[in-house]
Amino acid sequence: MSKAYPDATQIAEVVRGQEVSAKSVIAATLARIAEENQTFNCFTTVTADTAMADASKIDEAIALGKDPGILAGVPFAVKNLFDIAGLTTLAGSKINAENPPAIKDATAVAKLKQAGAVLVGALNMDEYAYGFVTENSHYGATRNPHDTTRVAGGSSGGSAAAVAAGLVPLTLGSDTNGSIRVPASLCGIFGFKPTYGRLSRSGAVLFSSSFDHIGPFARSVRDIAAVFDILQGADESDRVCTKRPPQLCLPQLNQGLEGLRIAVAEGYFAKGAELEALEAVATIASALDVTKFVTIPEPHRARAAAFIITAAEGANLHMDSLRSRPFDFDPATRDRFLAGALIPATWYIQGQRFRQWYRDRVREIFKEVDIILAPTTPCFAPKIGQQKMTIGGEEVLVRPNLGLYTQPLSFIGLPVLSVPIHHPDRLPLGVQIIAAPYNEALILRVAAVLESQSIISAPVAQ
Amino acid sequence: MSKAYPDATQIAEVVRGQEVSAKSVIAATLARIAEENQTFNCFTTVTADTAMADASKIDEAIALGKDPGILAGVPFAVKNLFDIAGLTTLAGSKINAENPPAIKDATAVAKLKQAGAVLVGALNMDEYAYGFVTENSHYGATRNPHDTTRVAGGSSGGSAAAVAAGLVPLTLGSDTNGSIRVPASLCGIFGFKPTYGRLSRSGAVLFSSSFDHIGPFARSVRDIAAVFDILQGADESDRVCTKRPPQLCLPQLNQGLEGLRIAVAEGYFAKGAELEALEAVATIASALDVTKFVTIPEPHRARAAAFIITAAEGANLHMDSLRSRPFDFDPATRDRFLAGALIPATWYIQGQRFRQWYRDRVREIFKEVDIILAPTTPCFAPKIGQQKMTIGGEEVLVRPNLGLYTQPLSFIGLPVLSVPIHHPDRLPLGVQIIAAPYNEALILRVAAVLESQSIISAPVAQ
Repeated sequence: MSKAYPDATQIAEVVRGQEVSAKSVIAATLARIAEENQTFNCFTTVTADTAMADASKIDEAIALGKDPGILAGVPFAVKNLFDIAGLTTLAGSKINAENPPAIKDATAVAKLKQAGAVLVGALNMDEYAYGFVTENSHYGATRNPHDTTRVAGGSSGGSAAAVAAGLVPLTLGSDTNGSIRVPASLCGIFGFKPTYGRLSRSGAVLFSSSFDHIGPFARSVRDIAAVFDILQGADESDRVCTKRPPQLCLPQLNQGLEGLRIAVAEGYFAKGAELEALEAVATIASALDVTKFVTIPEPHRARAAAFIITAAEGANLHMDSLRSRPFDFDPATRDRFLAGALIPATWYIQGQRFRQWYRDRVREIFKEVDIILAPTTPCFAPKIGQQKMTIGGEEVLVRPNLGLYTQPLSFIGLPVLSVPIHHPDRLPLGVQIIAAPYNEALILRVAAVLESQSIISAPVAQ
Repeated sequence: MSKAYPDATQIAEVVRGQEVSAKSVIAATLARIAEENQTFNCFTTVTADTAMADASKIDEAIALGKDPGILAGVPFAVKNLFDIAGLTTLAGSKINAENPPAIKDATAVAKLKQAGAVLVGALNMDEYAYGFVTENSHYGATRNPHDTTRVAGGSSGGSAAAVAAGLVPLTLGSDTNGSIRVPASLCGIFGFKPTYGRLSRSGAVLFSSSFDHIGPFARSVRDIAAVFDILQGADESDRVCTKRPPQLCLPQLNQGLEGLRIAVAEGYFAKGAELEALEAVATIASALDVTKFVTIPEPHRARAAAFIITAAEGANLHMDSLRSRPFDFDPATRDRFLAGALIPATWYIQGQRFRQWYRDRVREIFKEVDIILAPTTPCFAPKIGQQKMTIGGEEVLVRPNLGLYTQPLSFIGLPVLSVPIHHPDRLPLGVQIIAAPYNEALILRVAAVLESQSIISAPVAQ
């Protein structure tokens, strides 16, 4: 991280140390957003007034000698499917724009605010989180900060691009089939999808309940760990959220690789990608001295089942609107939801039955290894508007194939961090670091080692 | 229970006390089955040779001073969807008759055998457990022992009729939407559906996994309690089976009503029935001095959701056969399965979402009461072949409506005992005694009080 673009931890340090006021951090952030957002189209709402007021309170607390929180003065923003008190939660849609303002903040937003972070706005996404590109017909496409003719990825495209562009050091997104990891990969930053059920989704608009996760984007491993630690904990208002006690990761970051069995996913996860995507995995494997390979069984079926279950659960949530006002949907999501509404229950049930089988098989793999490496996306960021791409001589559709490697993992709720690899003269690419459920700490330890060796990093796009 | 037809507990007492040999009990049972089964069509297989061999072993153990088990020498039989080592498990179907013999006994069968009970055969049922009448096109209709022109109920019709006819004192059945309780009601015996997940289903052919329960039929409350206690306990081969430690009920049977809050279900559960069915509930409520009423919310929706989920899960399990050989199904189940195969996933998902809502509401009711009373069936046993019936002036279909009061309870896995009321010159009728999940002991205490007052009883049909 450069001096001009400190990470969240660094900002909090200087604010807590009274070197810089929270107000000046937030004012500078708002100025940068005002100047640069039109280029990237990350923000759908900027909460300038409340942000400045919140920053003042942080400064007052510090002046009074009170603890302002470990993220004191850190600007952050959230995908516009998180409730923000007083704002209407868009979830990328035109239909939801008619809803009344949210009464209170989503649990994750409230927790970050309690830790001293300052919310500066809401971020663009694919409508109802159903997409991998953030080319939203209502709110426009979000542009990739590394090449503004290209997509940022999706569905949390605004969240990834805002961090990659240096507008904010920290954002939240959601991941159903890859919606945190895909844009993290294409924008060259860290994107973390913890274990299913680990973080409260309360106050976040759901897409497909048995898949939806929330998680952070950031430019350093320590920031990811800090936010993850803050967001952990049971939440009565979220039935899915685990009641396990939090397991803090930040204190474990420097434990190194001691005792970790790491392997590269072969077979499905080593095919169908551009060479550079596989090269990125090899680079990380080499840095970690990994020689072991594992084969995850039937990932193509996991992906097929994920498509079916996602489409059916998504359609179910939007059935009333699909019936009464289909033409108010984004054309890119409408057809998928309508198709989802027609899926027979027996396919859905079969998908859920397969899911159990697959979960058991993958659990067995994690008896032999602690960490698995795989590409995040099969390709660099495609062009905005690009429909097809050619990988390994085969022409495939862009949109569904961006999730080729992410879907089989979120399908069973595994924790995954996408870490960024940057090469000069190339667009960035991500690599997935995967662990067994609730083993987030192991993932972050590995990432910290790679970051300390400068194998991975998340420089702001210049 | 008359001298001629002792209950299981009484048989075990005389066998264990060496007053009667297990062999003579089993020989007499087999003779009775040979003579009377053609009248009732309960058994699809009689395992005479292995039964006599097993009885000999019991007698040998007793002669050697070994403990032969608390059900020593008790003849029992099981719905033909339970695996019996060496026999093909029919599940009421022609298609499954082509399967190889089962390798080992279902967990429940094995546990009863370990307790000294002697298996004498397998019992008729609706094909794949999908029905409430046991009018099986492949294996014939089972006849109600109290009136052989009438159905025994289903889908565990053979299991209920065999007990009501005095062929055996003890049988096992399965209950998805009422398949233990409905035939127990129509045959005038006890039928117990414990909490979902309480008893292992391993080795039992499933119908609709998120609904299926197994449970016993018997002619006394103590027999029901004894079998329930034997069948409790975690089972690694059944993922659904609870890991909670067993809570033995037999020792609690005589604790009376002290501290129990009992209420009658009103609204939905007091409508749509013949007067005698409501009268049966009133008789029990009066004997227990119950004056409280509760309203279970939206039971009609619970029933609708149960229909949808059952049909969809059932169709999913049989999809291959439905595709390749639909005409080998019983016509009565084929059309239902085919309809189930066409149910949209969004209906299924909506049903599961409602289920969660409904479970929460009913949980709140159980903060106020411990036991709820409701009719088991809305009517006496219909005639064999009867398609429609008139209740309260309205003509309704027989088959689906037999589950009117049972479906909304199994939908959320509540434990329910159907207890029999007999009036001179009337057919028997059941009343459901319902508790919160895992509160089986409370149900059995209430039943024991009613039985001791002779309000309920299960005489063998004469």
